[in-house]
Amino acid sequence: MKALVYTGPKSVEIRDTALPRPKPGEVLLKMQLCGVCGTDIGIHSGTHPRAAAPLILGHEFVGEVVEAGARFARGQRVVAYPLLSCGVCHPCRTGSPHVCTGLRLIGIDQAGGLAEYLSVPEDMLFAVPEDMDNRIAALVEPLAVALRAVEQSGLGLADRVAVLGAGPIGLLTALAARQAGAAEVLVSDIDPARLALAGALGFRPVDLRQDDLSEQVQTATDGDGVDVVFECAGVGPAARDMTRIARPGGTICLTSLHKAPCPVALLDIAFKELRLIGSRVYTREQFRRSITLAQAMAEDLERVITRTLPLSGSAHVFDLIAAPEEADVKILIDCTA
Amino acid sequence: MKALVYTGPKSVEIRDTALPRPKPGEVLLKMQLCGVCGTDIGIHSGTHPRAAAPLILGHEFVGEVVEAGARFARGQRVVAYPLLSCGVCHPCRTGSPHVCTGLRLIGIDQAGGLAEYLSVPEDMLFAVPEDMDNRIAALVEPLAVALRAVEQSGLGLADRVAVLGAGPIGLLTALAARQAGAAEVLVSDIDPARLALAGALGFRPVDLRQDDLSEQVQTATDGDGVDVVFECAGVGPAARDMTRIARPGGTICLTSLHKAPCPVALLDIAFKELRLIGSRVYTREQFRRSITLAQAMAEDLERVITRTLPLSGSAHVFDLIAAPEEADVKILIDCTA
Amino acid sequence: MKALVYTGPKSVEIRDTALPRPKPGEVLLKMQLCGVCGTDIGIHSGTHPRAAAPLILGHEFVGEVVEAGARFARGQRVVAYPLLSCGVCHPCRTGSPHVCTGLRLIGIDQAGGLAEYLSVPEDMLFAVPEDMDNRIAALVEPLAVALRAVEQSGLGLADRVAVLGAGPIGLLTALAARQAGAAEVLVSDIDPARLALAGALGFRPVDLRQDDLSEQVQTATDGDGVDVVFECAGVGPAARDMTRIARPGGTICLTSLHKAPCPVALLDIAFKELRLIGSRVYTREQFRRSITLAQAMAEDLERVITRTLPLSGSAHVFDLIAAPEEADVKILIDCTA
Amino acid sequence: MKALVYTGPKSVEIRDTALPRPKPGEVLLKMQLCGVCGTDIGIHSGTHPRAAAPLILGHEFVGEVVEAGARFARGQRVVAYPLLSCGVCHPCRTGSPHVCTGLRLIGIDQAGGLAEYLSVPEDMLFAVPEDMDNRIAALVEPLAVALRAVEQSGLGLADRVAVLGAGPIGLLTALAARQAGAAEVLVSDIDPARLALAGALGFRPVDLRQDDLSEQVQTATDGDGVDVVFECAGVGPAARDMTRIARPGGTICLTSLHKAPCPVALLDIAFKELRLIGSRVYTREQFRRSITLAQAMAEDLERVITRTLPLSGSAHVFDLIAAPEEADVKILIDCTA
Ligand SMILES: NC(=O)c1ccc[n+]([C@@H]2O[C@H](COP(=O)([O-])OP(=O)(O)OC[C@H]3O[C@@H](n4cnc5c(N)ncnc54)[C@H](OP(=O)(O)O)[C@@H]3O)[C@@H](O)[C@H]2O)c1
Ligand SMILES: NC(=O)c1ccc[n+]([C@@H]2O[C@H](COP(=O)([O-])OP(=O)(O)OC[C@H]3O[C@@H](n4cnc5c(N)ncnc54)[C@H](OP(=O)(O)O)[C@@H]3O)[C@@H](O)[C@H]2O)c1
Ligand SMILES: NC(=O)c1ccc[n+]([C@@H]2O[C@H](COP(=O)([O-])OP(=O)(O)OC[C@H]3O[C@@H](n4cnc5c(N)ncnc54)[C@H](OP(=O)(O)O)[C@@H]3O)[C@@H](O)[C@H]2O)c1
Ligand SMILES: NC(=O)c1ccc[n+]([C@@H]2O[C@H](COP(=O)([O-])OP(=O)(O)OC[C@H]3O[C@@H](n4cnc5c(N)ncnc54)[C@H](OP(=O)(O)O)[C@@H]3O)[C@@H](O)[C@H]2O)c1
Ligand SMILES: [Zn+2]
Ligand SMILES: [Zn+2]
Ligand SMILES: [Zn+2]
Ligand SMILES: [Zn+2]
Repeated sequence: MKALVYTGPKSVEIRDTALPRPKPGEVLLKMQLCGVCGTDIGIHSGTHPRAAAPLILGHEFVGEVVEAGARFARGQRVVAYPLLSCGVCHPCRTGSPHVCTGLRLIGIDQAGGLAEYLSVPEDMLFAVPEDMDNRIAALVEPLAVALRAVEQSGLGLADRVAVLGAGPIGLLTALAARQAGAAEVLVSDIDPARLALAGALGFRPVDLRQDDLSEQVQTATDGDGVDVVFECAGVGPAARDMTRIARPGGTICLTSLHKAPCPVALLDIAFKELRLIGSRVYTREQFRRSITLAQAMAEDLERVITRTLPLSGSAHVFDLIAAPEEADVKILIDCTA
Repeated sequence: MKALVYTGPKSVEIRDTALPRPKPGEVLLKMQLCGVCGTDIGIHSGTHPRAAAPLILGHEFVGEVVEAGARFARGQRVVAYPLLSCGVCHPCRTGSPHVCTGLRLIGIDQAGGLAEYLSVPEDMLFAVPEDMDNRIAALVEPLAVALRAVEQSGLGLADRVAVLGAGPIGLLTALAARQAGAAEVLVSDIDPARLALAGALGFRPVDLRQDDLSEQVQTATDGDGVDVVFECAGVGPAARDMTRIARPGGTICLTSLHKAPCPVALLDIAFKELRLIGSRVYTREQFRRSITLAQAMAEDLERVITRTLPLSGSAHVFDLIAAPEEADVKILIDCTA
Repeated sequence: MKALVYTGPKSVEIRDTALPRPKPGEVLLKMQLCGVCGTDIGIHSGTHPRAAAPLILGHEFVGEVVEAGARFARGQRVVAYPLLSCGVCHPCRTGSPHVCTGLRLIGIDQAGGLAEYLSVPEDMLFAVPEDMDNRIAALVEPLAVALRAVEQSGLGLADRVAVLGAGPIGLLTALAARQAGAAEVLVSDIDPARLALAGALGFRPVDLRQDDLSEQVQTATDGDGVDVVFECAGVGPAARDMTRIARPGGTICLTSLHKAPCPVALLDIAFKELRLIGSRVYTREQFRRSITLAQAMAEDLERVITRTLPLSGSAHVFDLIAAPEEADVKILIDCTA
Repeated sequence: MKALVYTGPKSVEIRDTALPRPKPGEVLLKMQLCGVCGTDIGIHSGTHPRAAAPLILGHEFVGEVVEAGARFARGQRVVAYPLLSCGVCHPCRTGSPHVCTGLRLIGIDQAGGLAEYLSVPEDMLFAVPEDMDNRIAALVEPLAVALRAVEQSGLGLADRVAVLGAGPIGLLTALAARQAGAAEVLVSDIDPARLALAGALGFRPVDLRQDDLSEQVQTATDGDGVDVVFECAGVGPAARDMTRIARPGGTICLTSLHKAPCPVALLDIAFKELRLIGSRVYTREQFRRSITLAQAMAEDLERVITRTLPLSGSAHVFDLIAAPEEADVKILIDCTA
């Protein structure tokens, strides 16, 4: 079968690989669509700490059951909770396996969904509702990241929110925050295409190349500061902004992964009694709810998908992403083509 | 009357000043004891952003009512909740006046308790229980800081804790954490006298000049990391340590006031889903409970007081504090002498 | 001026009363619209513990400033936070004046808004946005009750919810829960008209005269039970249902006011580790946010208003409400007519 | 081997039974001490919904490893987390297996520790520290119940607390609450011996046969009401008291298991915005921490043990418990005698 394989730093290829053979408890899936995500970009660039070539990428996928398992019938469309936990570390022992100290993921630590077929333990699968489009199902995984971030934040009804970064995670988080009742959502970025999309989705775009974020926040909140900040940019300037724009008693939810320590105004955190809360992937239950949520948000989610490529012609996907003029947000790969 | 007056950067004097005249709603207090605190050191050094010379210092005091007010009889000993809030900002409007955006304090923004007399609005006063020593009453204010930090942290029974910094705030926080049921409390510092005191109080001292903090934490927690970190040092290296030693899902309570932004390993916060929570002073209710708590902890609190000076001979108090060989932790000033 | 006056058990009249004279700090409002609520029904029936005849009713109103005050210009439309707190009880001292032990309300403990004019302390007023209809503004107060209930409940995204009671509070709570991201909202009642409205608003109506609530919940939640129950009926059978239909670890938010103690299955609460949380009115900040929320929900809110009566012809409003065949939910009174 | 066997309603016997044969993953334990608990009383009385005769009782035990397993050496003393969860229900799937909808326990749903030997899955075992007395180890299980209750309650430092019921669970909860920093702990009961013990342990006993609980609470809290109520009595009058004595915004932690629905003043819950929170057994992590906590509280725990019986002479233990004049609280059985 064909698969998109990471073969080493800056290099991916479409390769012919052996059809996976389901182990006991696994079912074989015929892949339908699979999203490409920031983590995949990190793997491609060769900087991911764990991923080792050769590796079939892809952890945001929807597939079809090829042969019936114990719970799913043949032909059933499914999405997979892609986390593999060790079961013995402190988080695993205390009901939080999603922050397992040895957490591994399908598509990062073992073969993923950017292929024609994938074999997955059946207990990691969730049924896709009949009336859900495959394109929406492919967004269940990244939306689960946003769902957890919003829940970690404790966002209230009619709260005022700032999302730093209008990449896929930032935009999905802004959408999830609105779904949770946020009144006013500012979205900051430096990329004009992403800001335009943020504006089209109904958010207040803040173009950091020309606008002053603090000023915009002051105006939008009558000088109070925002109730919740979602840091989804992962760059130093965002870490500097996040404490400045939060209101006293406010919350900063940190979804982004900063590659190196960066300066944070700890004085703001103490003086304003801010809560800075990390958010990592999602629990099984949140993944399950992300399916329901995705269906409710389908119309908006559609607009975040900027391109679909056939698997056979996807070897240049990381070049597209790297090219700002392409103005991509979320790219899906059609594994059947 | 005599008072210890801040007269400009690096300079304090004992001065003769006018007896304060109570305004309506105020009562005149004859000062008994008043503690000197890190904030006073900051004012003395000339780096405090608000304090303006000439200023009578002191916000950790116990006094005696000179003339009966509406609620307190003559001779009643009292401690004062020293916070002055604006009443109109967002925190004030939403039940959190202790993080008022224009917060002011007795002894920082207006005349304080390092004097023979002080006039205070009666509704800021709390009665000192009859069986409480004045020395313990003088610690109610800094203990309230520790009480809030411990409550903000959500510390559980038999939790494992690290306190960074064995200054007055660090030691009181360690004591309050133990009072709240912490099982194992590591206290790190670089000052041998403070570490010795930490050890004598029953904590596990970590001497950063020779011990490896991460290693000590791993040993003390079977490799899990501590449940709660209290950052009470206020220096860059502590900000670096705090994320490293917390267990996944753990909490960092930030009491210290970092003068400048400093590097923080945000990746740890996201990956381990840490909660970094600022803690600032205390609410009125926490101040009230600090009185009860102080009495329950009196024996240990006594040991944190390393020296008592007469007010008349207190002009060199900041020199003492600055001299590491003096090995001071908490110094009290006897305002009656 | 004309006013709807409660004159004793089961008796209200349109009376001519003196125009109120603003005290210092108050502004005179020309009333526009005022809602009638369950509490008013209780007062009318003579069972309210505090309300004393003669009393001008009404605490859900929008008015227009007659003469400029310190903050509001003449002609400005406003809604009023109607809570009066004592300032000295434990809740008042600890930042929760909305549960003041001596809580009083405009329209219950002193003259209210079912009149041509009302004088209100200016600091209780909030501006109505220019583009907001008076009818929506009149719903800000009851919506604030629903907003607080939803926030107290900690509702998550795509959570499954049951609302017991399809009265004004139940329907507004169901709407607020959906606004906060609830996926599936069951609404139970015994009144066909109210159930029909619940269905028309997009909820799953459960007609307790024929449907089995537990069964419907099991079906709607794959046997898990609902994540959150809102008890908005205030009758014994609802208190019995609430613990039965919640999932283990779920939350029951109790908004309704049960006149007498009633049997509760405490075994369910312990065994399923349920959280039963009382919710009372709203904080000032929640009232402020309710204005923003009302605007976002305007279309749905419109449908909850089933009738508008002129003040001059409103003396029979409690007869209408008592007549099930009238099928009313929320009745507004036009104070200008 | 000898074992205490429940043979039917109101009947237990010392029987000779077959030595258990460890299945794969299990280790054989030589029982040392085993406590008798309220649940055992329920089983004995024949009212327990699940327990089926013949059954070896006992789930509060300390044993010695007979033959080394994978993690524990021969001779190692251990206590066992006695909960068996299904792994597939909603609570199990969402990290809360301790409220599994099909929860089963060693000693209730399968043979327990009131015997000379017991075979237990090794992964349910925790090491007993070398310096811990067997008598204290035997209290780890009921203390874990108290630990969870205290943590569920969110008790603050110097909080004022009432514990309803001075049985084993009530007294352990009062002790755990004090260990968590409670300032003032009232303990109510109707049994003079238990009240005397509560007083001797340093709590304020409230003898409901003659004292008025509300009055005592008012006095002890300056009229505020208690911050936290622990309902550990499980009788109707306690359910009536619990809402009355809690302060506005206070918490009621419900540990007791009420056999039937009983009247609760729901109006108090709504009006005072109380949180009524169920607490059931404990998580694995809380059980682990209970070992540390037991050691810190050893001196007080000793006093709760009122009697130790040899296993061979324990057939009348339920008669002793039923006889108020015996004034027992916690009875241990010496399984080696
Ligand atoms: N916690 C988790 O479980 C989890 C899961 C998935 C992803 N993540 C992390 O979440 C973050 C966002 O992911 P993503 O896929 O959306 O990444 P992304 O596509 O790189 O999006 C980040 C966006 O932020 C913009 N940006 C740059 N500087 C900024 C600034 N100062 N303020 C605001 N925005 C700025 C970037 O613009 P340019 O592209 O023009 O620089 C980019 O559009 C990443 O750090 C990723 O590793 C975390
Ligand atoms: N949030 C609030 O409301 C509030 C209230 C009061 C105080 N504070 C803040 O709390 C902090 C502590 O106050 P304090 O009065 O206890 O101050 P302090 O006396 O300066 O204590 C800090 C201690 O930390 C030690 N230290 C230095 N480097 C360290 C490191 N890498 N790790 C651990 N410890 C280290 C210091 O040793 P050396 O002295 O030898 O350098 C000193 O003993 C200050 O930042 C203060 O501003 C906050
Ligand atoms: N906490 C607060 O601050 C606050 C503020 C406002 C109101 N409230 C309370 O909230 C509650 C609801 O107010 P409301 O104005 O919406 O009252 P409402 O109009 O009386 O609504 C209650 C609804 O519940 C229905 N009902 C009767 N039995 C039921 C059952 N077994 N299960 C489900 N529904 C049942 C009633 O039907 P029928 O009419 O046919 O009997 C009615 O439609 C009241 O108790 C009120 O006092 C509380
Ligand atoms: N949630 C859980 O996981 C869990 C675990 C273990 C136990 N439990 C439950 O916790 C409860 C307490 O257990 P236990 O072993 O301590 O039971 P217990 O020995 O029966 O203790 C209850 C005590 O309450 C006294 N009491 C009676 N009426 C009272 C009243 N109105 N107010 C205050 N106290 C009153 C009883 O006195 P008399 O004996 O004189 O009547 C008795 O001393 C039980 O309901 C048990 O089922 C729950
Ligand atoms: Zn793990
Ligand atoms: Zn303020
Ligand atoms: Zn009050
Ligand atoms: Zn289960």
